[in-house]
Amino acid sequence: MNTEQLLQALRWRYATKVFDPNRKIPAETWSAMEETLVLSASSFGLQPYRFIVVDDPALRQQLMPHAWNQRQVVDASHFVVFAARTSVTEADIDGWIDRIAEVRGMPRDSLAQYRSMMTGMLLTPEFQPQAVHWAARQAYLALGNLMTAAAVLGIDTCPIEGFVPAEFDRLLGLPEQGYTSVVCCALGYRSADDKYATLPKVRRPKEELIRHV
Amino acid sequence: MNTEQLLQALRWRYATKVFDPNRKIPAETWSAMEETLVLSASSFGLQPYRFIVVDDPALRQQLMPHAWNQRQVVDASHFVVFAARTSVTEADIDGWIDRIAEVRGMPRDSLAQYRSMMTGMLLTPEFQPQAVHWAARQAYLALGNLMTAAAVLGIDTCPIEGFVPAEFDRLLGLPEQGYTSVVCCALGYRSADDKYATLPKVRRPKEELIRHV
Repeated sequence: MNTEQLLQALRWRYATKVFDPNRKIPAETWSAMEETLVLSASSFGLQPYRFIVVDDPALRQQLMPHAWNQRQVVDASHFVVFAARTSVTEADIDGWIDRIAEVRGMPRDSLAQYRSMMTGMLLTPEFQPQAVHWAARQAYLALGNLMTAAAVLGIDTCPIEGFVPAEFDRLLGLPEQGYTSVVCCALGYRSADDKYATLPKVRRPKEELIRHV
Repeated sequence: MNTEQLLQALRWRYATKVFDPNRKIPAETWSAMEETLVLSASSFGLQPYRFIVVDDPALRQQLMPHAWNQRQVVDASHFVVFAARTSVTEADIDGWIDRIAEVRGMPRDSLAQYRSMMTGMLLTPEFQPQAVHWAARQAYLALGNLMTAAAVLGIDTCPIEGFVPAEFDRLLGLPEQGYTSVVCCALGYRSADDKYATLPKVRRPKEELIRHV
């Protein structure tokens, strides 16, 4: 892909207000979308999030009123809730060290320095109240990755912050697992009726947004 | 681009530890990278961030010791500091309304409902302490967008959270402009010496990270 094709895809992207409820993302393409989430970068590699793909139409109907009744929740082909970890525990870190040792075939001891870097930063009393913010940022990075990957493949997206996290958490059973919903993304294909698709994109001027020093 | 090419690009991507200091991103390609930042999605479209591209080698040298002496700060072709807005003001919102009216050629009055949705949510006393977290999340979304766009074009990146924001803020003069540094990204081309480039990528198993409900 060259720069012009990339920019074309990013200019084509917009926060889709009306999805075509009859068009579904093919299974193979959706699988690639999930893979982009898995491949997303995160702080220390810890992936302090879970991605909840809501397949059940009845559950989507239950979520919609808690998302300002935005129809993207039910009309889009796929709907993902980004759930951030609300705290970091020693077990999280040890589980991650185990995973690295397993995948890379390394002795656990060789990761001792890496482990103590993580525990020294993430298990302090000062960090704990910040943990959910830290985790949410990583989830947003994954959201940016997903939206750009989708645009490159010609899939429409709508990031959704307008929802009631407490209600989503309750309906998805997140708190008991140590997670909270921070943002959502609907994915699918725009409807021909979406008047927002053709509005000029508005951004601050480049020279205001980007400063060279 | 098809799904396999996209996934290849995302698997090729890794947090580059050693950049080739002699390879620079061509000007036209860099311009596209800046455009991906401009085109990033944000809450209400408000773009509560600035992207500081540090061109000055002397300034990069000054920043490096406050980033755990990571050499990516000085060796990478380009180095971007993501600065998040620390508060939201009525003037921010009005400036944004003006901009939409200007670009879309709409009367300002027709945006009254949109304006009151933003003021109602962002100017409350409860929101203000959260403003920087909200802005930081948008900046991370832009980071995810940038990293994926870079990977698609074959540009290496290293997201950097290991730095002292207060020192970066001071050196870049951010607080007096109402911003604070939240994350950085080095961009360029990997050195042939970077042993991290060939390590197997480690992620939690897909079925653990992604849950279908």
